[in-house]
Amino acid sequence: MKRHIDEELKKLKDKLFRMGLLVEQALEAATSSLFERDSSKALAVIKGDQEINLYEIEIDELGHELIALNQPAAVDLRLITMVLKINNDLERMGDQAVNIAEKALIINQEPPIKPYEDLPKMSQDVRRMMRDALNAFMEQDADQAKSILECDDIVDRLNDKIYDDLQILMVQKPQCIRPGVSLIMVSHNLERVADLATNIAEDVIYLKRGIDVRHHIRERRGEKV
Amino acid sequence: MKRHIDEELKKLKDKLFRMGLLVEQALEAATSSLFERDSSKALAVIKGDQEINLYEIEIDELGHELIALNQPAAVDLRLITMVLKINNDLERMGDQAVNIAEKALIINQEPPIKPYEDLPKMSQDVRRMMRDALNAFMEQDADQAKSILECDDIVDRLNDKIYDDLQILMVQKPQCIRPGVSLIMVSHNLERVADLATNIAEDVIYLKRGIDVRHHIRERRGEKV
Repeated sequence: MKRHIDEELKKLKDKLFRMGLLVEQALEAATSSLFERDSSKALAVIKGDQEINLYEIEIDELGHELIALNQPAAVDLRLITMVLKINNDLERMGDQAVNIAEKALIINQEPPIKPYEDLPKMSQDVRRMMRDALNAFMEQDADQAKSILECDDIVDRLNDKIYDDLQILMVQKPQCIRPGVSLIMVSHNLERVADLATNIAEDVIYLKRGIDVRHHIRERRGEKV
Repeated sequence: MKRHIDEELKKLKDKLFRMGLLVEQALEAATSSLFERDSSKALAVIKGDQEINLYEIEIDELGHELIALNQPAAVDLRLITMVLKINNDLERMGDQAVNIAEKALIINQEPPIKPYEDLPKMSQDVRRMMRDALNAFMEQDADQAKSILECDDIVDRLNDKIYDDLQILMVQKPQCIRPGVSLIMVSHNLERVADLATNIAEDVIYLKRGIDVRHHIRERRGEKV
C-alpha cells in the first residue's frame, strides 16, 4: 500500500531535481560564456542565481514541515535530511556558477590566451558528475554513485594539470597573468562543484548500503569499499 | 521543568563546539605554518583532519538518533537540523585548513616574497568570524550573528585587495608567479571559511528571529534586515 509520506517524499525529491536542472544549466551557461566569449550568458547566470536561492529556501521549509508533521521512520528521516543537505550543496554549486560567470566577464575583456582544451573537458566531466550524482540520489543507485567517486580523481588531476600549465604560461608570457589567474580560479571553482557532487554520491552510498564512505575512512584502512 | 531532550540537545551542541575548537586550531596552525615558514605545522594540520572528519560522522549520527527517538517539536527539530548543517560547514572549514596547509608546504619551499600584512590580518578576521559564528549559535545570539555579516564584507574586500596586489607583483616579478598564485589560493580558501561562518550566522538569525536573511534577499529589496 502506498503511504501518504511516499507521495510527499516524491514531491520533495522532484522539487530538488528541478533545482538541480537549474544549477546544471547555470554551470553550462557560465562555462559557455567563457569558451564562446559571450558575456551576455555570464550576466544571465548572475541574474538567475536568485531563482536557485529561492528554490533552496522552499525545499528547506518543505523538508522541515515533512519531518514535523509526519514523524517519519528512521529511513525516511535520513532521506529527508539528505534532501536538506543536497539542497545546500546544489545552492553552493549555483554559487560556483556565479563565481565562474564573474571571472568570465573579466577574462572576456582580455585578449584570448592560447586554446585550452583541458578546461572544456573538465567542465563537461564536472557537469556529468553533478547530473549523475542527482540521478543516483533520485534512483538510490549506489553503483552509479560509486562511479562518481572515480570521476572525482580524474577531475582533480585535470585541475592540477590546468594549474601547472597556466603557471608555466604566465612565467613565459607575463601579459597572460591576469587572464591566467582568473582561469586558475575557474578551474578551482569547477573542482569545487566536483567535490560537492562527490559528497552527494558518498551520501547515496551511505544511505543505500549503510556504510560510511565519507572521507574514504575504510579505503584508508585498505579495506574494499 | 527541564526536559530530557534539553540535556540531549546540550550534549549535541557541546560536541559541535568541541569540533569547532579543533577546526579553529587547524586554521590557526595552517596559517602560522605559512607566516612562520614552519612546514611541520602544515603537516600536523593535514594529519589532524581525520579527527575532525570523525567528529562530523559522530555528530551526524547523534543528531539523527535524537530526531528518530524523540520526535522533537518544530523548534527543537530546527535546532537539530541546524547542528547537522553547521557540522557539515565545520568539516568544510577543516578541509580549507588542509588546503591552506598544502599550499604552505609549496610556498615554504620558495624564497620569501615581500612582507604581506593583509593576509595575517585576513586570517585573524576569518578565525574570529568562525569563533563568533559558533558562539552566536551556542548562545542563540542574533546580534552577534549580525555583526558577522558585516565582517564578511571586510574580508571580501581584503581578499580582492590581496588578489590585485599579488597580480601586480607577479607582473613586475615573474619569479613570484609560483608563490603568488599559491597565496591567491590561500586568500581564496580563507574567504571560503568566512562564507561558511556567514552561512552559520545567517541561520542563527533565521532561527532566532524567524526571518530568512539567507542570500540577503530582503537587503536586495532595500528593506532593513
